[in-house]
Amino acid sequence: MDIRDIIAKKRDGEELSSFEIETFVSGCADDSISDAQVAALLMAIFLREMSIREIADLTVAMANSGEHPDLSGVRVPTVDKHSTGGVGDKTTLVVAPLVAALGIAVPKISGRSLAHTGGTLDKIECVPGLTTALSPGHFSRQVAAIGVAIAAQTAELAPADRKIYALRDLTGTVGSMALGISSIMSKKLAIGADAIVLDVKVGREADIDDSRNFAKTMVAIGTRCKKRTVALLTRMEDPIGRAVGDAAELVEAIETLGGEAEEDVAHLCSIVSGHMLAVAGVVADPAEGARKARQALGDGRGLEKFRELVKWQNGDPSVVDEPGALLKDCVRTPVLALREGYVTEIDAPRIGGELRNLKAEAGASKGLCGALIHKKTGHSVTAGEELATILSPAGLDDGAKRFADEIEASYTMGDQLVSVPGILREVVEG
Amino acid sequence: MDIRDIIAKKRDGEELSSFEIETFVSGCADDSISDAQVAALLMAIFLREMSIREIADLTVAMANSGEHPDLSGVRVPTVDKHSTGGVGDKTTLVVAPLVAALGIAVPKISGRSLAHTGGTLDKIECVPGLTTALSPGHFSRQVAAIGVAIAAQTAELAPADRKIYALRDLTGTVGSMALGISSIMSKKLAIGADAIVLDVKVGREADIDDSRNFAKTMVAIGTRCKKRTVALLTRMEDPIGRAVGDAAELVEAIETLGGEAEEDVAHLCSIVSGHMLAVAGVVADPAEGARKARQALGDGRGLEKFRELVKWQNGDPSVVDEPGALLKDCVRTPVLALREGYVTEIDAPRIGGELRNLKAEAGASKGLCGALIHKKTGHSVTAGEELATILSPAGLDDGAKRFADEIEASYTMGDQLVSVPGILREVVEG
Repeated sequence: MDIRDIIAKKRDGEELSSFEIETFVSGCADDSISDAQVAALLMAIFLREMSIREIADLTVAMANSGEHPDLSGVRVPTVDKHSTGGVGDKTTLVVAPLVAALGIAVPKISGRSLAHTGGTLDKIECVPGLTTALSPGHFSRQVAAIGVAIAAQTAELAPADRKIYALRDLTGTVGSMALGISSIMSKKLAIGADAIVLDVKVGREADIDDSRNFAKTMVAIGTRCKKRTVALLTRMEDPIGRAVGDAAELVEAIETLGGEAEEDVAHLCSIVSGHMLAVAGVVADPAEGARKARQALGDGRGLEKFRELVKWQNGDPSVVDEPGALLKDCVRTPVLALREGYVTEIDAPRIGGELRNLKAEAGASKGLCGALIHKKTGHSVTAGEELATILSPAGLDDGAKRFADEIEASYTMGDQLVSVPGILREVVEG
Repeated sequence: MDIRDIIAKKRDGEELSSFEIETFVSGCADDSISDAQVAALLMAIFLREMSIREIADLTVAMANSGEHPDLSGVRVPTVDKHSTGGVGDKTTLVVAPLVAALGIAVPKISGRSLAHTGGTLDKIECVPGLTTALSPGHFSRQVAAIGVAIAAQTAELAPADRKIYALRDLTGTVGSMALGISSIMSKKLAIGADAIVLDVKVGREADIDDSRNFAKTMVAIGTRCKKRTVALLTRMEDPIGRAVGDAAELVEAIETLGGEAEEDVAHLCSIVSGHMLAVAGVVADPAEGARKARQALGDGRGLEKFRELVKWQNGDPSVVDEPGALLKDCVRTPVLALREGYVTEIDAPRIGGELRNLKAEAGASKGLCGALIHKKTGHSVTAGEELATILSPAGLDDGAKRFADEIEASYTMGDQLVSVPGILREVVEG
């Protein structure tokens, strides 16, 4: 079958057959289809869209284009977790060890920073010595032994997705829902967990209807691919928790696991954990799961599981006992309030965007760039009070000053106290 | 300017600026834009289309992406000619020397066979020894000296178009009117004739509204690019003339130039020539031009000009006196009528398609493959009469038999005489 016929069919708005989608994906995996032809089809998919059936076929074909980790040695239910990413979202670092401590396994393949959101890999690699480049054998053994691993995608996992992913970035087709969902879900399918919990962020940028539609499609694809799938729509207007930036978020995650949590982080992590435990079938419902998760944050079981993970991945376990030491070399620059009042809104993507600029200046020390956000929506502030503290490696004073100005500007202040709604907006189930 | 932003803009249906189009084209010419990115933009252009202004900008940018032949030594008006191609269309071979004999110059860059239509280069190269690979210097000198050259596109002419043209074929974007028109017109602009006559075929496959729209857009682009441009909508339901196939069409073209013409070929060539002479301003109107052209077919002036062209391009001029010798090695297979009646329709594209199959079997002798069509629409036929004669190189008996069956099947016969309308349907002027 000629790939040109497949391109022309989608170009004309027709639905591709399963065989046509498999032909395309296998041609991506073995490089028998030129980049130009893949790119033309991606643009046609962007503009003509795909049905749920086509997205599911694309997902399965990409998932099967490479190897799968061997999870046969894992004796407990396995659950994967995905977040669409928010500023300060360190949830995976907390939730993965937490639920592993509660009797399920999390074989987690994570990504690096994208746009204004940090990547879990960049954060956990701030543990001195820790590696995320785990061999498939190590990954499988670690998950079987301690119930959790956080690793980078290997070349063998969904290679067709790797090729398509790289071309999407070049060709203006990143925004295609069909391509986005199939990319995320193909990696989940390739990893092979029993169930999936998705944390879909809703914020100023991502309108609720779009987010709900995205979540429903993700759940439909997961369900069609025979994975129990639940999506949570959660708020991301404010940064999540106190810390923003790789090392700072790692520190906050460890502190959260140790029981010293900001309430919003503890709450979000408990909800996500509760759903993971529930889809795994080890608790009666998400509420019971959330209660158990909250308990395990208090009694240190999550922290001990994180220590095991650090050791298995060659990291320095002293971080677990003294996380604050990771930030000891940071220069701290205060961000002061220019007026008194109530915080009515924080433009989190703006903070994320400027953090990215600072990281670009910092080079190898970029993990130290970040901020601690002390005042959040609903807080009262007096003039001159510290809204936030910039963290930066030495020698970046100008960048730190710019970041401080941006953070100050990202605050909207008012004279009336605003009520802050709950972080969980909706649950979408299959 | 990042090409990704240009892709995204067209993807979203916006009009690209002149600068954005130039950025794209120069990136194609110097290979700084990846094939994948070019392909993505081509698909976005296919689906989102382009305004006349955008097509004109694309045309000019591609025309200026390479070198131009030096026509400064040509002392008469120059006119280019383009046909969208029909089965048996040997018009260029007749018209170019004919109008050159009448005082204008035709600097013609031609193409090779595409789909079911033959290419002028393949036909003229049936003259033993003749080359179409003319250096820019030779091309310019020849046009200045004798007023006509028929050459292949060089690597230096509109290189951005060459890259885009190759990718269109791979990516299912050949059918884009914006890309098709800019490709044709960019080469015309790069060659630099003063005026352009376009022969746009209308047939069963190409609906009249589409053809008219195409012609109007071509004329609008030419006019916008400051070239006097006229488009003729002409019929192509039947094969044009008697001969189909490279050598056979060359023979018919030479015979036509020598005054032994089928009426439809002489008529079409006179009309096209008349318009070329008229846009050049050397006759008062196309009708006067057509009369002069018809005269020059009769008195041998066109044939003598063709002889000069053959000599300048290193061909054997004896062909001009004995064209029939080119077909002396052909095996001839008759195609017989199965019933009596009137020919009401001939499926010319079907004949062209099967000829392509036969040429693929013939390898190096493919130029000898062809057919002489004796019976055309409106002719009366008795059962067993010869409809056509297959021409084929020795050793292709099965293929010739198949071709004969296809030609027989491409005839529709009826009991009523049908009237055959004139070949010129409409003229579109700027």
